[in-house]
Amino acid sequence: MSKRKTALPVAPVPELIAKKRDGGELEPAEIQALVRGFTAGDIPEYQMSALAMAIYFRDMTPEETAALTLAMRDSGTVVDMSSVRGPKVDKHSTGRGLGHTGGTLDKLEAIPGFRVDMTTEAFVRQVGEIGCALIGQTADIAPADKRLYALRDVTGTVESIPLITASILSKKLAEGIDALVLDVKVGSGAFMKTKKDARALARSIVRVGTLAKKRVSAMLTAMDQPLGLAVGNALETREAFDVLHGGGPEDLVELTMALAAEMLRLAKLAKTPTEARKKLTAAIADGSARRAMRDIIEAQGGDPRTVDDPDRLPRAPRIVPVRAPLAGAVRAIDAKEIGLASMALGAGRTRSDQAIDPAVGLILRKKLGDKVRANDTLAELHVRDEATAKIATERVLAAYSLAKSAPRRTPLVIETLRGRSS
Amino acid sequence: MSKRKTALPVAPVPELIAKKRDGGELEPAEIQALVRGFTAGDIPEYQMSALAMAIYFRDMTPEETAALTLAMRDSGTVVDMSSVRGPKVDKHSTGRGLGHTGGTLDKLEAIPGFRVDMTTEAFVRQVGEIGCALIGQTADIAPADKRLYALRDVTGTVESIPLITASILSKKLAEGIDALVLDVKVGSGAFMKTKKDARALARSIVRVGTLAKKRVSAMLTAMDQPLGLAVGNALETREAFDVLHGGGPEDLVELTMALAAEMLRLAKLAKTPTEARKKLTAAIADGSARRAMRDIIEAQGGDPRTVDDPDRLPRAPRIVPVRAPLAGAVRAIDAKEIGLASMALGAGRTRSDQAIDPAVGLILRKKLGDKVRANDTLAELHVRDEATAKIATERVLAAYSLAKSAPRRTPLVIETLRGRSS
Repeated sequence: MSKRKTALPVAPVPELIAKKRDGGELEPAEIQALVRGFTAGDIPEYQMSALAMAIYFRDMTPEETAALTLAMRDSGTVVDMSSVRGPKVDKHSTGRGLGHTGGTLDKLEAIPGFRVDMTTEAFVRQVGEIGCALIGQTADIAPADKRLYALRDVTGTVESIPLITASILSKKLAEGIDALVLDVKVGSGAFMKTKKDARALARSIVRVGTLAKKRVSAMLTAMDQPLGLAVGNALETREAFDVLHGGGPEDLVELTMALAAEMLRLAKLAKTPTEARKKLTAAIADGSARRAMRDIIEAQGGDPRTVDDPDRLPRAPRIVPVRAPLAGAVRAIDAKEIGLASMALGAGRTRSDQAIDPAVGLILRKKLGDKVRANDTLAELHVRDEATAKIATERVLAAYSLAKSAPRRTPLVIETLRGRSS
Repeated sequence: MSKRKTALPVAPVPELIAKKRDGGELEPAEIQALVRGFTAGDIPEYQMSALAMAIYFRDMTPEETAALTLAMRDSGTVVDMSSVRGPKVDKHSTGRGLGHTGGTLDKLEAIPGFRVDMTTEAFVRQVGEIGCALIGQTADIAPADKRLYALRDVTGTVESIPLITASILSKKLAEGIDALVLDVKVGSGAFMKTKKDARALARSIVRVGTLAKKRVSAMLTAMDQPLGLAVGNALETREAFDVLHGGGPEDLVELTMALAAEMLRLAKLAKTPTEARKKLTAAIADGSARRAMRDIIEAQGGDPRTVDDPDRLPRAPRIVPVRAPLAGAVRAIDAKEIGLASMALGAGRTRSDQAIDPAVGLILRKKLGDKVRANDTLAELHVRDEATAKIATERVLAAYSLAKSAPRRTPLVIETLRGRSS
């Protein structure tokens, strides 16, 4: 950002909105003034939402998006990680379209005692001491993003590549990272429905991250069915621990290895993906991956014994099988319906202030391409009661499409985009 | 509006915004819910401004615009004119781009004692008794328009044909009119800068007015120079009285006759424009036009003697000529610069709460195509003091462009658009 002109006065807000509306390019100083004014409450929400809609239609150049990202990063605390030695790398996934089915934090909180809230000082200390921390966004990180996202959510302006880019990157840059690997999920159940949209977002984040002098890679990954077999908070955590023990479902292992290998490469701890994968496999084989997980859990107040003894995680009282009504091959699994089944069991939220049940969820027993005989178990529901099991069963049956022949397998990692300096 | 579905529930506002954003057509019931919610304060301004921006980009069908117009009309009082016999006709001009140079109400208020504010009851009574009233918009007429316009004004969403259409027509329909003649001014100094934009607005208003079962015509009229010779409130009122006496500048007479003839035609008081013009000429010749003006002024508290003795209007203490610096023919007069000259003298407002001086202004002595010798008077300034005269002189000189030869004359009334039932 060599062209910063913070000292110059900028045009009134309506003129800036009209400039963007008419396809003009906003100057970094203009974008900074907009973000600062909005964060300070001087620019009302009705102007910001009109601007967001104009951006939706007119898009932004990488330079505009970078200026927006940096201005949003600078709206709050920017963590100073200089006391921590070595490269700082983070990973982000664009996740599902369905907002409330339980996020990463919910899965971590399924570990008894685990705390995801932490002061900035404690965060920096933990990363310095054990090399990793898994935390939620603190209120002082990119407050402009929080306000703008809440506004976009109710004004039809979520689906804008530059606004999504700035939202994701501003928070990550505020953490003090050197590098970032982005997992852009593609599919009907994902936030990005088409390869075209996913590629546009991946390109935008890599380009803007590079403009912000970070090493950024983005992977387009298929979300044509739920990843792994487990759906639900403790069940997914347990499945993740399986991977650390050298087990776990094939697709989950494949994606985890691909993302982690790219993180190692960006951190310059491996020169090639092959070298990175060797290191990762060794870390699983020699137990250091499990040890790192136990260290993190212990540092964040959780019970580290869960890693090797996952029965210590919350468990639902009953397991109810969902049986196939007829024979065939699994042609499709609607991730959204599966998510709704999990919600019905109590694993997600319909309102943001709702408590979730960490124990409930489901385990898929058949995935894309699997052969199914009539009465085979398609999935196991981990439930509290009959009533929710009944609704979830219907959802699971609705999610599965069976056909005579199995579909062709598509690769999980569709493509990887890397920045010039990555 | 045969498809009104007011009883049906409509989708949440973010979905309606997204529907319009994606190019969908909003149902009348959806538009009604939006306008009602906004007027009641249930729909926040940030959603309405985002919707307005989506409408700016996606436009509206005539049916959507009609639904918006009727919903805005119904947001306040709809005057019942049924007690008044005969057709009720109004005229509207889209006017200038420059907001504060003094509007129709300011010119009327230059008449000593004249009041433009009136209750709805008094308005209906006066129209019934003397056939005409010249009033400002009351607060209970189309409050949704007032709120929406204030919002559009600061969110870059003024220049949208369906929103302008609904703004103009909702107020006029709320007056209880049967017919409307619209004067859409075209030119660099006008609200509509290009013939294309002006035609789009004219078509939209005629079409939507027709859908609302009113007889509506729209005239595109050239605003390539100020209309008439007078600029300033009392000066323009005096010039209008000149027209009622059979005098007045040629272009002002031409436009007034064209608009008034179309009003008579829509009111079915004349079958052809020629017949209408004969009636108008007769009304001027036999003094009935002047008498009508005196009746209106008297009914609204003003001094009716001003019509025949315009020296009773406020007059500036000094007249200062602006002289041509060189010889030539007038190739252009920048209406915006002339407006700014008039503002500098005190005839307009820079803030909405400012008082204006009815007496000051200027009289153009040369118009487009006129030959000018060096030192000829281009315009006369009617001023209070030397300081403002100096600024206005510079503005007037900047407004005039002289060339070797005169430009070709373009017609004042460019075209007339009429509804099918008009």
